[in-house]
Amino acid sequence: MCVLKEGRVHFKQMAIIGVGLIGGSLGLVARRKRLVRSVIGYGKRRGELQRAIAAGAIDRYFLSIQKTVSDADLVVLATPVGMFEKICRSMAPYLKEGTIVTDVGSVKGEWVEKIETLLPPHVAFVGGHPIAGREKSGIESSAIELFEGHRCILTPTARTSRPALKKMRAFWEAVGATIYEMDPVEHDRVMAAVSHLPHAAAYALMETLCHPDIAHDNPVRFSAGGLRDFTRIAASSPEMWRDIFLANGGNMIKVINRYIQTLEAMKKKIAAQDGAGLTTLFSRANVIRQKAIL
Amino acid sequence: MCVLKEGRVHFKQMAIIGVGLIGGSLGLVARRKRLVRSVIGYGKRRGELQRAIAAGAIDRYFLSIQKTVSDADLVVLATPVGMFEKICRSMAPYLKEGTIVTDVGSVKGEWVEKIETLLPPHVAFVGGHPIAGREKSGIESSAIELFEGHRCILTPTARTSRPALKKMRAFWEAVGATIYEMDPVEHDRVMAAVSHLPHAAAYALMETLCHPDIAHDNPVRFSAGGLRDFTRIAASSPEMWRDIFLANGGNMIKVINRYIQTLEAMKKKIAAQDGAGLTTLFSRANVIRQKAIL
Repeated sequence: MCVLKEGRVHFKQMAIIGVGLIGGSLGLVARRKRLVRSVIGYGKRRGELQRAIAAGAIDRYFLSIQKTVSDADLVVLATPVGMFEKICRSMAPYLKEGTIVTDVGSVKGEWVEKIETLLPPHVAFVGGHPIAGREKSGIESSAIELFEGHRCILTPTARTSRPALKKMRAFWEAVGATIYEMDPVEHDRVMAAVSHLPHAAAYALMETLCHPDIAHDNPVRFSAGGLRDFTRIAASSPEMWRDIFLANGGNMIKVINRYIQTLEAMKKKIAAQDGAGLTTLFSRANVIRQKAIL
Repeated sequence: MCVLKEGRVHFKQMAIIGVGLIGGSLGLVARRKRLVRSVIGYGKRRGELQRAIAAGAIDRYFLSIQKTVSDADLVVLATPVGMFEKICRSMAPYLKEGTIVTDVGSVKGEWVEKIETLLPPHVAFVGGHPIAGREKSGIESSAIELFEGHRCILTPTARTSRPALKKMRAFWEAVGATIYEMDPVEHDRVMAAVSHLPHAAAYALMETLCHPDIAHDNPVRFSAGGLRDFTRIAASSPEMWRDIFLANGGNMIKVINRYIQTLEAMKKKIAAQDGAGLTTLFSRANVIRQKAIL
């Protein structure tokens, strides 16, 4: 069980399910800052797990979920969110009394509710979402400073154990993040706007440029900074984003609809040669920019 | 008149109409690399012109277009493109024999044709578009290395003087750019896709996040890298982009339509929970990325 050592959170054994960019970086920080005695990795690909050991992200690994979680007092779900349900079902019988299960997924709402019902009552679940990432995925991109100075949103519900929540706050603070608490459903609504929609917009832009009407002479070679920023966003893990889009589908459809309406309005202004209307629209973009650059 | 000194292009007097980011940087480089004997600035705001002198972008300035251009052997249009027609009309009577007029505008097609008819026959026009820029506009952001290693597209037509084109090639090469020649109409079609559409997408995204349905609790404070890249794009000069959108209206409407169709298709995949379809779409984005990162 987790104990607070000299005011610091400490776990005996952390199991990380999925040692990619986020899971790997978390293992790296937790080991380096001695927030855990040891870290077990779990994954499907032995090669990746071996690279995770070499990178210092985990102490050892298992390909069996039972062996991975049965001694853990902290289990971190760090796979694409689409796998959470299957993992929770398969590990549930082996989780010991008092273990905290958390996740680092970008979608919370319905998943949190489902996970809470799948896990046994003697286990505490605390949803977590570190707002950190890179365009490159995988253990090779993991870094000890990934969470430093970033926000981490925790999404407690009425069912969340308060002591477990307190420990996870302390854990993420020790990792270097600033903690916010948010309702899981509200979390998904906000993320659809500020994170998932930008990715949808970037992927759709890349797809548009691939269209034969547009791409026949590879216009991309004449691109400048603007397009490069988009391509950076669109270079994230396809599997991760597939799961996010599917899991946050309702909110995604709403924000994409609103985005399409805005594009339609912009198009009308262009067709009407409404210079004043365009200037107003472009100037307003700077207002939101001021809020975004914190 | 321009002479090639020791194999290098050289102008006696360069007039820059509009000493913002691009005009100012061009003056800075041309003076530093001694591609010109002197640089005259023209603008509406005396304060900006004085700052351009302080920044080393121009030697002196006039508020009279006649005084600015009458001794120039190179005139560079560097205002927002919407002002080109008015400027060409007002300076036409004062341009001396053999002067080269060029521009740095992001839209070419119809403008080039119009400018060619507005300028007297003893003057050569060579359209130019350096693919360089920053999210910050104005003389304060000008920099000597702005064009270094970037592309500059020249857009000659059947009417373009070949000696003048050769000189402008040499000039931009001396500035540090790599030269491409492109038909003006083709230029606008390509730029609509790789430059103007990304800006439309970024502005529309910012506008969407401003919408009361979405912005009521300032979700932007929970944004991560993805949104920051967008806000950077959307922070460019509103006036410049207004003129680009209006001048390249036909192409803009086409690419925005295609973009909306792509977003609609993405939405359908989400609604249908079509994970395989989303993965294909996201993976394809990496293909275009490979082409973009040159």
